Amino acid sequence: MTAMPRRSAGRSGGRAARVAARAAALSDDMRPIRPGMTGGQYRPLTDMQMARIHETALAALEEIGLADAPQSGIDAMTAAGAVLGDDGRLRFPRSLVEDTLAKCCKNLTLFSRDQRHDLDLGGSKVHYGTAGAAVHMVDVDGRNYRESTLQDLHDASRIANTLDNIHFVQRPMVARDITNNLEMDLNTIYACCAGTTKNIGTSFSDPSHVEDCLEMLYMIAGGEDKWRERPFVTNSNCFVVPPLRFATESCETMEICIKGGMPVLLLAACMAGATAPSTIAGAIAQTVAECLAGLVYVNAIKPGHPAIFGTWPFGLDLRTGAMSVGSGEQALLSAGCAQMHQYYGLPGGAAGGASDSKLPDMQAGWEQMCSNVMAGLSGLNMVYEAAGMHASLLGFCHESLILGDDLIGQAQRCVRGIEVDDETLALDQMREVCLNGPSHYLGTDATLSRMQTDHVYPFLGDRTSPKEWEEKSKPDLLKNAVARKEEILATPSEARFDPALDAALRARFNIHLS
Amino acid sequence: MTAMPRRSAGRSGGRAARVAARAAALSDDMRPIRPGMTGGQYRPLTDMQMARIHETALAALEEIGLADAPQSGIDAMTAAGAVLGDDGRLRFPRSLVEDTLAKCCKNLTLFSRDQRHDLDLGGSKVHYGTAGAAVHMVDVDGRNYRESTLQDLHDASRIANTLDNIHFVQRPMVARDITNNLEMDLNTIYACCAGTTKNIGTSFSDPSHVEDCLEMLYMIAGGEDKWRERPFVTNSNCFVVPPLRFATESCETMEICIKGGMPVLLLAACMAGATAPSTIAGAIAQTVAECLAGLVYVNAIKPGHPAIFGTWPFGLDLRTGAMSVGSGEQALLSAGCAQMHQYYGLPGGAAGGASDSKLPDMQAGWEQMCSNVMAGLSGLNMVYEAAGMHASLLGFCHESLILGDDLIGQAQRCVRGIEVDDETLALDQMREVCLNGPSHYLGTDATLSRMQTDHVYPFLGDRTSPKEWEEKSKPDLLKNAVARKEEILATPSEARFDPALDAALRARFNIHLS
Repeated sequence: MTAMPRRSAGRSGGRAARVAARAAALSDDMRPIRPGMTGGQYRPLTDMQMARIHETALAALEEIGLADAPQSGIDAMTAAGAVLGDDGRLRFPRSLVEDTLAKCCKNLTLFSRDQRHDLDLGGSKVHYGTAGAAVHMVDVDGRNYRESTLQDLHDASRIANTLDNIHFVQRPMVARDITNNLEMDLNTIYACCAGTTKNIGTSFSDPSHVEDCLEMLYMIAGGEDKWRERPFVTNSNCFVVPPLRFATESCETMEICIKGGMPVLLLAACMAGATAPSTIAGAIAQTVAECLAGLVYVNAIKPGHPAIFGTWPFGLDLRTGAMSVGSGEQALLSAGCAQMHQYYGLPGGAAGGASDSKLPDMQAGWEQMCSNVMAGLSGLNMVYEAAGMHASLLGFCHESLILGDDLIGQAQRCVRGIEVDDETLALDQMREVCLNGPSHYLGTDATLSRMQTDHVYPFLGDRTSPKEWEEKSKPDLLKNAVARKEEILATPSEARFDPALDAALRARFNIHLS
Repeated sequence: MTAMPRRSAGRSGGRAARVAARAAALSDDMRPIRPGMTGGQYRPLTDMQMARIHETALAALEEIGLADAPQSGIDAMTAAGAVLGDDGRLRFPRSLVEDTLAKCCKNLTLFSRDQRHDLDLGGSKVHYGTAGAAVHMVDVDGRNYRESTLQDLHDASRIANTLDNIHFVQRPMVARDITNNLEMDLNTIYACCAGTTKNIGTSFSDPSHVEDCLEMLYMIAGGEDKWRERPFVTNSNCFVVPPLRFATESCETMEICIKGGMPVLLLAACMAGATAPSTIAGAIAQTVAECLAGLVYVNAIKPGHPAIFGTWPFGLDLRTGAMSVGSGEQALLSAGCAQMHQYYGLPGGAAGGASDSKLPDMQAGWEQMCSNVMAGLSGLNMVYEAAGMHASLLGFCHESLILGDDLIGQAQRCVRGIEVDDETLALDQMREVCLNGPSHYLGTDATLSRMQTDHVYPFLGDRTSPKEWEEKSKPDLLKNAVARKEEILATPSEARFDPALDAALRARFNIHLS
C-alpha cells in the first residue's frame, strides 16, 4: 500500500514524538470528537413501549408508593400532594408527578472549576466519566487486588484530569485508609478537587457531614456566593433502597445538599432480579418510578433545583445472585433508561462501561465497549462508571482508566455518526479520481483536509503491522498504560490548589494527603 | 447478598461441571439468543440520507461506470442495457439498476450440510461468522505471528463448528504451506468442510480452478443434483478493484460459480481514504454503486441467482496509510451499509468484529465489540470477520475465536433487545414484593422461570468476586481459552467425512491434511 505523507506525529517519530504531538492538542474546531455530542440514533424502545413503561411507573407510584421517607420529606411531599397511607407508604397521585415534570429543572449545566469543562446536559448530549464506589485498587503489575486509599483516589482524579474523553469525575473509589467517616468525606472532596478541574461527584456517609463539606467547598470556590453561582460538585445520592423505599438518611443528606446549592444525582441503583424485577422492562419501570418519586421530593423541597435523573439498574448473574455489570442485559438496561430520560426531557444518567473482569483484559474491553457505545448511541447524558471499573464495581484500575480514554474515544466517534452532504458523498471526487486521476484518493485535498477532523486516532491502541510490531519488540498494551500512568503522575497537576488556599484548607481540616 | 439456589452448572461445581452443563445445550425454545435475531433498532442514517446515498450511487453508475469487465461480462451486461463507452467503461442507466433491484433474489437462505445451521437472510436478521483471509496465525502462548497453514484452517473450522454464536465459516486464513494454488483452493474446501457442517465461504485464486472445486463439492454433497438443491458453500468474490473497476479474473470466476449453482458474495472491499473517499458517506456510496453493478452482472448472467450484497468498506489510518479495522469509523461504515441493504431489501453482509491489535488483549475486546454490536443493532444479515481476526485482517487467532463466541453472545443479547409487555413490566410482582412480600425478587416465580431464557451467561468470561477470583488462583482468560481450544481439538469433529467419502476424495484429489 502506498504510504501517506507522514505527519510529524506519525509512527516514524516514535513514542516521544507522539506524546509531544498529543500534548499540542488540536484546536477545538479541529477535534473529531468532543464532550456533549448528540446521540439517539439507537432506540431500543418504541414510542409505545416508552409510554407503557411510563404508565407502569405512574401506577406503581399511585398504588404502591414508597416507604421510609424521613419526617421532613413526608411533610414536604404531602404538602405538595403526596398521600401518606396507614402503612407508612407515601403515594404519588399522577397529577403530582405530572406537575413535577412540568416545573422541574430541565436545562441543566454541570459546572466545573475550569469552565472549559462545564457539561451541558440538554437533549441527547453524551458525556462519559468515572463513578464509584470501588473498595479495591487493581494492581496490574502484580495481578492483585488491595484496599483502595486516598492517594489512589487522588491519582485517579489527576489521571482523569488529563484524559480528553473523561468528561467528569465522580469519585470512583473509597479511601479505606481513613477510618473516621467525616474525615473520609472531607478528604474525598479534597483529593478529587486537588486532582481535577472537571465536574466532580461525591456522596456523604452521614447527613451531619454535609455542613463541613460545604464549608470546604465554599473555601475552594472562594466564597459561598461563588460556590452557589457555579457549584462544581454534585451530590451522588442513593435516595432509595429498592424496591420502592426511601433511604431515610440519604434523603436527609439530600435535603441539606439542596439547601447548600449542590446539584443532586438522584441515584436509584437496583439489581434486576434481586431488588427489581429480573426483566429489563420491569427493572427500568421500577427505577423510573423511584426517580420520579425522587424528583417530586427534590422539587417539593426547592422547585427547579438541579437534579439528574439517575436510573441505574444493574444486572445480576442469577446463577449465583452476584451483581454483573458487563453483560448485554446491562447495556440494554442503561440504553433503555436513556430513552426514558428523553421521553421526559430530563437530564439523566446511568451506568455504562463497567466490567466484571478483574483485570484490563479482552473481556474487560468487550464489556466496557458494549455498554459504553450503546449508552452513547442511545443519547445518555451522563455515562457513569465509563472507565476504570472492574470486578462488578468492586475494583478500580488506573491503567484501565487510561485505556478507557482510547475506548471511549472510539465510542464517541460512533456517537458523532455519519455526515451526509455533497462534500461527504464525494461524487465529484469519484469522477475526478476514476476518470482523470490516479485511481486512488490518498492525496486528494478532501482526504488530506479531513485527516484530523474526521478520524479518532488511538493513543495507546496499536495499529502496527505484524512486522512493525515485531520490530518494536511487541509493545504490550498494559505495560504502555503503566508507563503513561507514571508519566502523568510525574507531572504536577494543573488542578492543584493555590498554596495559600491549600494552607487554609489544611489549617481548617485534617487533610491526610501529603 | 443472598445467594440464589445454584443450578448444577453453578460456580460451586467448578469448570468440569460447567462444561458438562454447557454440553447439555438448552433446548431451542429455552435459548436466550439464536442465529438470525432481528436487528435494526440502531439507524445511523435517516431515510433522507439513505435516499441521497442511493442517488449518488446511481449517478456514479450512470456517469462514471466501471472499467475492466471481461468480454463475457460486457456481452451480458450490454445485452441487459448497460452502455459500453469509448473509454472502455461500462455505464449503467438508472432504469437497468432499478429493473435489477426489482427482479433479483431477495429471500435468500444459505444452506449448510446440517440443515440446523441454515441461515435465513431475510429482513434484518443477524448472523455472525468468520472471514478472511489472514496470512498469519497468532500464537498466543508465544506472543508470536507465524505463517498460517492448512491445519490451522481446519482447526479453526472445527473450533467454529462447536461455537453456538459463530453461525457460518468463511475461510478465515490462507493455507500458506500449499504452494500450488489449485491444490490450495481444493484443500481449503476440504479443510473447511471436514471441520464444520455450517455454511462455508471461500474464494478461488483462478477461474480455471472452479471446475475441480465444484467436482469436489458435488462429491461431498453426494452428487451434483444434491449440491444444486442445497449448495452449502458460497463464493466470496472480490469482483471489483475499487474505485469502480471490475476485477477481470474474479468476474470470470464468478460466472463459472453462477453456472455451478454456487451463491455469490459480491464482495466490494474498498479502503476509505485510499480506494474510496475518506468520508464514511462517500465510501458507502461508492461501495453501494459497485455492489449494484455486481448485482446487475449476476442477474445478467442468471436472473435471480442468489447473491449477497457485500459492501465491505474498510477504514484506513490516514497517518500511515495502513488499513485499520478496529475504529469507530469502521463500525459506522458497516452499520451504514446494513441500512442500505435494508433500503434495497437485499440480503447483505459487511465486516464487523475485526481488530487492529496483534493479540486478544483489551484493545481487541473493545474493537471487536464495537463493530460487532453496532452491526447487529443495525440489522446486518451477515457480519463477516466477527471473531478471531487480528492485525487489521493479517492474523487469525484460535483463542480469540473462542473468546469471540462469548463476546458475540453478549452482542446478540443486545440485538434481541427489550421486551415490553404486562409480564415483563411486572407491576403485579412489584405490588406483591413491596406490599406483602420479602422486598426482593430473588425467589419469585418470574425470576426463576426466566433465568435461562432471558440471560446470556458467559462461558469463559469471568464474573467472580475478587475473593473468589483469588481462591481460584486468579484464572487467566487467555490460558482458559487455550485450554478450551485443546479440549475442542481433542474431541473428534462431528463434521468429519464418512470414511468412504473421505477415501474417494483422497483418491481423486491431493489432500494435504493427514
